[in-house]
Amino acid sequence: MAAKYVYLFSEGNGTMKELLGGKGANLAEMTNLGMPVPQGFTVTTEACTRYYEDDKIIADEIIDEIYANVKKMEEITGKNFGDVNNPLLVSVRSGARASMPGMMDTVLNLGLNDEVVIGLAKLTNNERFAYDSYRRFIQMFSDVVMEVSKKNFEEIIDELKDEKGVKLDNELDADDMKELVKRFKNYFKEQKGVDFPSEPKEQLIESVKAVFRSWNNERAIIYRRMNEIPGSWGTAVNVQAMVFGNMGGTSGSGVAFTRNPATGERKLYGEYLLDAQGEDVVAGIRTPQSIEEMKETLPDAYNKFVAIANTLEKHYKDMQDMEFTIENEKLYMLQTRNGKRTAAAALKIAVDLVEEGMITEQESILKVEPKQLDALLHPQFEQKALKAAKIAGKGLAASPGAACGKVYFTAEDAVKAVNDRKEKVILVRLETSPEDIEGMHVSEGILTVRGGNTSHAAVVARGMGTCCVCGCGDIEIHDESQDKYFTLNGEKVNQGDYISLDGSAGNIYIGQLPTVAAEITGDFEKFMAWADKYKRLKIRTNADSPSDAAKAVEFGAEGIGLCRTEHMFFEADRIMPFREMIVAKTVEQRKAALDKLLPMQRSDFEGIFKAMNGFPVTIRFLDPPLHEFLPTKAEDIASLAKELDITAEELEAIVVSLHELNPMMGHRGCRLAVSYPEIAEMQTRAVIEAAISVNKNGMSVVPEIMIPLICDINELKFVKKIVVETADNIIKSAGVDLKYQVGTMIEIPRACLLADEIASEADFFSFGTNDLTQMTYGLSRDDANKILDDYFTAKIFEADPTARLDQSGVGKLVKMTVELGRKVKPGIKLGICGEHGGDPSSIGFCHNAGLDYVSCSPFRVPIARLAAAQAAISGVKAGE
Amino acid sequence: MAAKYVYLFSEGNGTMKELLGGKGANLAEMTNLGMPVPQGFTVTTEACTRYYEDDKIIADEIIDEIYANVKKMEEITGKNFGDVNNPLLVSVRSGARASMPGMMDTVLNLGLNDEVVIGLAKLTNNERFAYDSYRRFIQMFSDVVMEVSKKNFEEIIDELKDEKGVKLDNELDADDMKELVKRFKNYFKEQKGVDFPSEPKEQLIESVKAVFRSWNNERAIIYRRMNEIPGSWGTAVNVQAMVFGNMGGTSGSGVAFTRNPATGERKLYGEYLLDAQGEDVVAGIRTPQSIEEMKETLPDAYNKFVAIANTLEKHYKDMQDMEFTIENEKLYMLQTRNGKRTAAAALKIAVDLVEEGMITEQESILKVEPKQLDALLHPQFEQKALKAAKIAGKGLAASPGAACGKVYFTAEDAVKAVNDRKEKVILVRLETSPEDIEGMHVSEGILTVRGGNTSHAAVVARGMGTCCVCGCGDIEIHDESQDKYFTLNGEKVNQGDYISLDGSAGNIYIGQLPTVAAEITGDFEKFMAWADKYKRLKIRTNADSPSDAAKAVEFGAEGIGLCRTEHMFFEADRIMPFREMIVAKTVEQRKAALDKLLPMQRSDFEGIFKAMNGFPVTIRFLDPPLHEFLPTKAEDIASLAKELDITAEELEAIVVSLHELNPMMGHRGCRLAVSYPEIAEMQTRAVIEAAISVNKNGMSVVPEIMIPLICDINELKFVKKIVVETADNIIKSAGVDLKYQVGTMIEIPRACLLADEIASEADFFSFGTNDLTQMTYGLSRDDANKILDDYFTAKIFEADPTARLDQSGVGKLVKMTVELGRKVKPGIKLGICGEHGGDPSSIGFCHNAGLDYVSCSPFRVPIARLAAAQAAISGVKAGE
Repeated sequence: MAAKYVYLFSEGNGTMKELLGGKGANLAEMTNLGMPVPQGFTVTTEACTRYYEDDKIIADEIIDEIYANVKKMEEITGKNFGDVNNPLLVSVRSGARASMPGMMDTVLNLGLNDEVVIGLAKLTNNERFAYDSYRRFIQMFSDVVMEVSKKNFEEIIDELKDEKGVKLDNELDADDMKELVKRFKNYFKEQKGVDFPSEPKEQLIESVKAVFRSWNNERAIIYRRMNEIPGSWGTAVNVQAMVFGNMGGTSGSGVAFTRNPATGERKLYGEYLLDAQGEDVVAGIRTPQSIEEMKETLPDAYNKFVAIANTLEKHYKDMQDMEFTIENEKLYMLQTRNGKRTAAAALKIAVDLVEEGMITEQESILKVEPKQLDALLHPQFEQKALKAAKIAGKGLAASPGAACGKVYFTAEDAVKAVNDRKEKVILVRLETSPEDIEGMHVSEGILTVRGGNTSHAAVVARGMGTCCVCGCGDIEIHDESQDKYFTLNGEKVNQGDYISLDGSAGNIYIGQLPTVAAEITGDFEKFMAWADKYKRLKIRTNADSPSDAAKAVEFGAEGIGLCRTEHMFFEADRIMPFREMIVAKTVEQRKAALDKLLPMQRSDFEGIFKAMNGFPVTIRFLDPPLHEFLPTKAEDIASLAKELDITAEELEAIVVSLHELNPMMGHRGCRLAVSYPEIAEMQTRAVIEAAISVNKNGMSVVPEIMIPLICDINELKFVKKIVVETADNIIKSAGVDLKYQVGTMIEIPRACLLADEIASEADFFSFGTNDLTQMTYGLSRDDANKILDDYFTAKIFEADPTARLDQSGVGKLVKMTVELGRKVKPGIKLGICGEHGGDPSSIGFCHNAGLDYVSCSPFRVPIARLAAAQAAISGVKAGE
Repeated sequence: MAAKYVYLFSEGNGTMKELLGGKGANLAEMTNLGMPVPQGFTVTTEACTRYYEDDKIIADEIIDEIYANVKKMEEITGKNFGDVNNPLLVSVRSGARASMPGMMDTVLNLGLNDEVVIGLAKLTNNERFAYDSYRRFIQMFSDVVMEVSKKNFEEIIDELKDEKGVKLDNELDADDMKELVKRFKNYFKEQKGVDFPSEPKEQLIESVKAVFRSWNNERAIIYRRMNEIPGSWGTAVNVQAMVFGNMGGTSGSGVAFTRNPATGERKLYGEYLLDAQGEDVVAGIRTPQSIEEMKETLPDAYNKFVAIANTLEKHYKDMQDMEFTIENEKLYMLQTRNGKRTAAAALKIAVDLVEEGMITEQESILKVEPKQLDALLHPQFEQKALKAAKIAGKGLAASPGAACGKVYFTAEDAVKAVNDRKEKVILVRLETSPEDIEGMHVSEGILTVRGGNTSHAAVVARGMGTCCVCGCGDIEIHDESQDKYFTLNGEKVNQGDYISLDGSAGNIYIGQLPTVAAEITGDFEKFMAWADKYKRLKIRTNADSPSDAAKAVEFGAEGIGLCRTEHMFFEADRIMPFREMIVAKTVEQRKAALDKLLPMQRSDFEGIFKAMNGFPVTIRFLDPPLHEFLPTKAEDIASLAKELDITAEELEAIVVSLHELNPMMGHRGCRLAVSYPEIAEMQTRAVIEAAISVNKNGMSVVPEIMIPLICDINELKFVKKIVVETADNIIKSAGVDLKYQVGTMIEIPRACLLADEIASEADFFSFGTNDLTQMTYGLSRDDANKILDDYFTAKIFEADPTARLDQSGVGKLVKMTVELGRKVKPGIKLGICGEHGGDPSSIGFCHNAGLDYVSCSPFRVPIARLAAAQAAISGVKAGE
C-alpha cells in the first residue's frame, strides 16, 4: 500500500505527534473530543522528509493527496476554494514533533484573489476587512513563499499613510486597502517578473513547500541545535479553515494557560485582544487584556473556553497552553499543547499534579525539563542592596532571576560583545523576533519595550531560563545614530552602560546590583527527593576547592568525581614554587620546589575531604603541559627570571623547549609523571597525609587517586608503582590502616580499545569525554569555532559534540570500554567527569551505558539528578 | 610438574630457540650432531622472565637446578668446580631468541680463585697463562657483575707497565700477572668493601644474574627497538666449559662464514688469530689472518672445521656464521648461527640455494630481511666522478654502498650533528663498541682504524645496511684537544670536514663525491619476481610528481596510493597564486586565484597519469592547514604583503586568524573543502580534465579522488557532492565516458568506529595511519621526541608507534574498520598510505587484516613487495 501523506484532523489523534507534529496531533485530538476546531488536514512530517529526499520537490502523488483533502475540507465546511460566493480561506502553519514557537513560517488568509475578495467583502459586509485580509495575505505570501521582504511592503504602507496624512494603520479605510492591494501586486510583479498567483491551489502548494523549506531556515537550525531537536524529524504542515477574530467588537483572539506559567499557580492565566487575529496577541504589538475581562465582554465564549480548558488539562494531565479565536461570538480552538513554563512553575505544577492525584511521582519527574532547573539555581539580588536600590522603571516579570550586564540594542552587537570582549550583556529591544535568538541566548537578561507575558521575548526567555522584563513602555530607544542610548523616566542609559534586571519582579535598575546565590526550598526539595528515589546513577561534582565542594554537597552531590590539582597551583602563593619546579635543572632542585608545594596541597586536600564529609573524592594528578605555567612575552620572562634567580636567556630557553606544536597531544597528563616521578610522589604524599590527618579526627576517607591521559597499561603500571610505594610507606610509618584506590581517566581512544588490559590495573575508570571527544573527532576544541560554524551552515553537524556527547562515535568507545573493563573486572567503578556529565541527554546515555556515576559542575548537580531520574524512569526520553 | 629451567646441551635441540635462545639451541643441535662442542647447560629464557617477575631475584628452585646441572657438567667433563687439581672453568654467555651481537654481557674463565689458579698453572704448565686468565676474570667479573668499571683496571695495568718500563701487555711476565691479580683484588675490595668472591658457585649465580640484568641495559634496549625485538622475550644464559685458544702457537680462535657475507660467494670466508681467545678476534684489537692460512698452520683442525662447516650449512639450509677455538690443536665449536650478510649477499645466497636445490622459492623468500634491500637501493658514486677522484686511503670493504658526510669522532657528536643541525655524518672511530650503536645508526657511513670484516663495526654496519670501511690503519686520530682532526697519508681532515666512503671497494675520499641512484639487476630481478609470485597485497607508492612516480614503477609499484596535491602548491611558481587564494576576501577573488592554479595542477596530474601508464592513481585533496603556506616573521609578512598588494596589517591579521592551538586537529583536510568548496571544485576539475586529456591519447585512467580527514558521513556526502557534480558536468560537456572513484582517508578514530556508515558513500578506504596513530594515542608526532625518550627509558614503550604500526590499539581500529566497511560494501577497496606502509612488520599486519594494498615511498617499494610475499608465505614471520 502506498504511504499516506495527508490526514484529515478527524483521522488523527493525540498520540500521532511523530507523524502529524504536535500541533496536528492535538488538533486531531481536540476534534475527536468534539471541541470546536476549524477543520482541515495535516500534511505529515514524512512528506517533509520525502520533500528533502526528492531534492526539494513535492511528489505528484502527495500533491494529488493534498487536493483530495482540499475537496474533503470543502465538503466538511460547505465552502469552496476560489468560490466567490462562499470562499474557503485557509491558514497554512508548520507543526513539528517538538514545539518550535515562531521558528518556522505561517501563511494566513490563503485562497484570496481579486474575485474572491469581492465575495468576502459581500459575505462579511465588511469591505475594509476583506481588503485588509487580502493585502495581509499578499504581504505574508510574498515574504514567506516568494522571498520578497515584508519590510518593503511596510514601506509601501508608510508611503500611503504619508500621502493620506495619517499615522496609524487603522486610520486607513477600505479604499486605501484596495490601493495597497494594487500597489503590493505591482511591487510583486516588479520584483519577481510574474503576476501574483491568483489560483488558490497553486497558492496552497507553494505555501506548503515554503513551510517545508522553513524547517531549514537559519533560526530554526539554531533553535534545534539549542534544544537538541534532530534535523531529520522534519515538520508537518497544518491546513486549516480560517476563522476571523478581526471581524469587529464581537470577535477576538487569545492565548491562555490552564495554570500560571510563571508561578505554577492553579488559575486560568491568559490574554486576549478584541477585533484581532491571533498573530497580533503573540507579536505584542497591542498590549492585550487579561482573560478574566472576557467574562464581561464575551461571557458565552468565556464560559465555553473555561470548560474546554478544564477538560483539556484533565485529558492531557498537564498544564495546557491554548490558542483560540472568537468569530462573531463563536469560540474556535486553534491549538492546545503542554505549556512552556518557568522552572519554578514547572516544579510547582509537577508537585501539585501529584498531590491532586492526577499523575504519579514518576510521571511528574518526566514533566520537568532538567535544564530548566538552572534558572532556580541562578543568583538573586542581595536583599539589602535591592532595598536600597532605586527602581528606575517597571515592566512585566516575564522570566525570573536576576541579571546584570552592559546594554546593547541589537542581537548582533550583543553577540559581539560576549564573544569578542567577554562582556556580560543585557539585550534591550523594542520587541524581539526569532531573528534575535542568538543574541538572546548569549545575554544575561532581556528587556523589551513592547509585548506581554506571552510575547516572543517572554516565551523564549523562559524556555532558556534567562531573566526577562517585558513591555516596559516607558523606555525610549535611540539607536539610529552612532551614540546609541535609551531613556527611562528621564534617565539616560548609553550603550555599554550597566543595568540590572529583576525578572521575578519586573524591576529595572541602573548600574550594577550585587547578587547572592539561589536558595533551594519547598517544592524543589520535595521534587528532588522523588528524583533521588528513582535515579540509579550517583551524581558527583567537579570541584577543586572546599567552597565548591560544599556548594555541590548542598546541591545534592554524592562525591567529587574530578578534583583538578593543577588549579591549585595557579594561585598566587603557589605559582612561584611551581615555576621553580619547572625550571629545576636537577632532581634535587625539583624536589626542593615540590617540598614547598607539599604542605599547601596537603591542606587543600584536607579542606576538600572535610567539606565532602565522607563522600568519595577522586583526585586527578597534574594534567596540563608545563608551559601553561610560564609566561611567553619577553618582558614577563625577564621579570620572572629575576624572581627565579636565573638569567632571562635561561628562562627563555626553557620556555622555548617546552613549546609544543600540538600541546593537547603533547607532554601532559601521566606523561609528566613518567618524566618527573617526583611530582607524582609529592601529590601522593599530599593526598595520603591529608587523608590520614582527617581520618584521625573521626572521618573515614578512602581517597581515589586518578592518573590522567593513560593510553597504555605500562604507563599506568609505572605511575601506580610510584603511588603505591609512596602511599604504603606513609601508611606504614603512620601506623594506620588507610584504604585508597588508584584509577585512570579514560580520555584517549587507545585506552578505550585496550580497556580490558588497563582495567586489570585500575580500581576505577573515569571517562574524560572532553579530550576523548577531541581525539575521537580529531578536532581541537580550542580551534573548532570556525569549523563548527561552517559545519552547522553546511548541515554536516547538528550538535556541537563538545557540548552533547556524540553517542554514535564517542559513545561507541564508551560502551566498548564498559564492556571490556567489566569483562576483566566486573566490579570496576565507572564514571564520567567530562563536561558532558552535566548534559541531560548525555546523562541519559551514561545511564543506559551502565555507568555508576556522572560528575559535573556544582550548579549542574540538580540537573544531573533529575536527568538521571528521568533516564531511570524512561530510558527513551533523555537517552534519545 | 614443576617447570624445567635448565637444560644440558644434550637435552635440547635446534628447534628450541624460544626457550634456549639461538646460541643455546644451536649448541644443543651441534651436540646432537656429534660435533666437538665443549659441554655445558643453558638456563632458559623463562628463567629470565621469571627473574624479572620475581623482582630481580633468582628463585631458589632455579638455583638448585643450576647447581644440579653443574654437578652433571662435572660428571661429563671429569673436572670439578674449585678443584685445584682438575678445575672446571666455564664461560657464561647470553643468548636471546634473536641474535643481538655484543649487546649483552659475557664472563669468561669463571671458576678461578687463589687456589684454583695455582692448579691451572700446574696443569697447563703455564703460570703466566693461568694468572693472565685469572686477572682477566677478575676484571670481567668486576665490570659485568659488580659494576666496577673495566677502565679502572686498565689504569692499574698501565701503572704497572709504567713501573716496569714496558709498553705492551704481552711484555708483562707471570709475576707481573700475579701482581696485577693482587692489585685488582685490592682495588675491588676498596670499591665494594668486600673481598672478591672466591667461591665458584657464588661467582656463577652472580654472573647468571648479571646476564639477566644485561637484557635491560641501555644498548640492548636500543638494539631491540631498532630490530623490533620484544622486551618480554628475555635472554637465556649458556654456561659452557672453557677451552683456551690462548695456550700458545698450537692454539687459536676464529670466526668463519660458509659463504662470503659481503658478496654471497660460495666459499668459506673467515679469520683467525693464533694464541688468542675468541673475544680478541671479534674486538678487532689485533688484525687477524684469513681462514685459508689455517690450512698451513693447523691443517688437521682446518680440515675438520671445513667438514663441519659443510655439514652445518646443509643441516641448517643456510649460510652459517661459526665461532671456534683450537686448544692445543684440538678443534672446538663454540657457536653456529645463520650468518648476518649484506643485502647483495642475502639475495645471492637466497637465489643460489634455490638453484643448488637446497631450498624452495618460498623458503628463499623468507631468508632475506626486507629492510636489508634498502642497501641495494641506496645511491652509488657517479662513475665519472669516482674515476677522477683521488683515493686518499684504503680500508676493508666492510659494508657496501656510497656515503658522504661530515666527520665526527664520537657517537655523541654524530648524534648531535644529525639531530640538532640536520647534518649528514660519517662516524670515524679507532674501533667501535656497542656503546656507539646510536651514533652508528644516525651516520651515513662508518670508518674505523682497527678491526676486520667480522669486527663489531663491520657486523653492525652490514646489519644496518650502512656503508662501512674498516681497519684503515693509516689513519691517525687526534681527538684529545678542542681542534679534533685525523690525518691520512699526510692529509689532514678536521672534524666537520666532508669525506666520502665507498663501502663496496673500501676506498676513502676527501671531500664530497656526487652519487647516482642504485641500479637493479640480476639476482634482484629474479628474487623479486619470486616475491611477486607469492604476495597477495598490491604494492602502491606515495608519489607527488611524475619523476617519483616513474622511479616507483621502476621499483615495481603497481599504482599510486597517495598523491599529495598540496606538495605541488609549495613550488615556487604556485605558492603565490595559492597565497592569493588564502588571502581572498570574496569567493570571486578566491576563484580567480584558483583559476591560476588549475592549469598547473591539471598538467601535474597529466604527467603523473602518464608516468603511471594505466596503473591506478589515488589523488588526495588539499590537506594541510592554510597557515602552513604563509610566513610568520614580521619581515616576511611585510614583503609578502607587498607582493600580494595588501597591507602588512591585513596580512598579519590573516596570519593571526589562521593560527591554531592544535593545528593537527584543526582546520585542515576535508574541513577546508567544507569552508571553501571552490577548492575541491578546482581540484576535481584538474583531476578529471587531466584524465580526459590522457585518455584521448589512448590511456584508460580511472582516477581515484580521496577526501582526507573524514570523521562523519555527512562530511563525505558534502564534499562528494561537489566532486560528483563538477566531474559529471565536465564529463558530459566533453562527451566522453570517464569512470572515476571517490573514497576517503581513514585517519580519525571516529571514522573507524562508523566505518559502516562511511563505506556506504565511499568507493575505497585508505588508512592514513600516521594521523590515526597520533589521535589514537593522543600523541603529537611533532612533540613526541622527549616523551618517547622518557618512555623508552622507563620501558613503557618498546617501539615507536609512529614507525611501527601499533597492532593492539591502532590495529584494532583498522580491523574494526575492515569488518564494518566490508559488511556494508563487500567489494570496497582497502589500502594503507601512512608511513607504516613501508614497514615490514606493519605490512605483515596489513596482509593479515585483509587489506588490498599498501602504499609507501618509492625506495620502500621493493621492501614492501618482499614483506608482502613473506606475509603471504608465512603469516607468522612478518606479522608477529
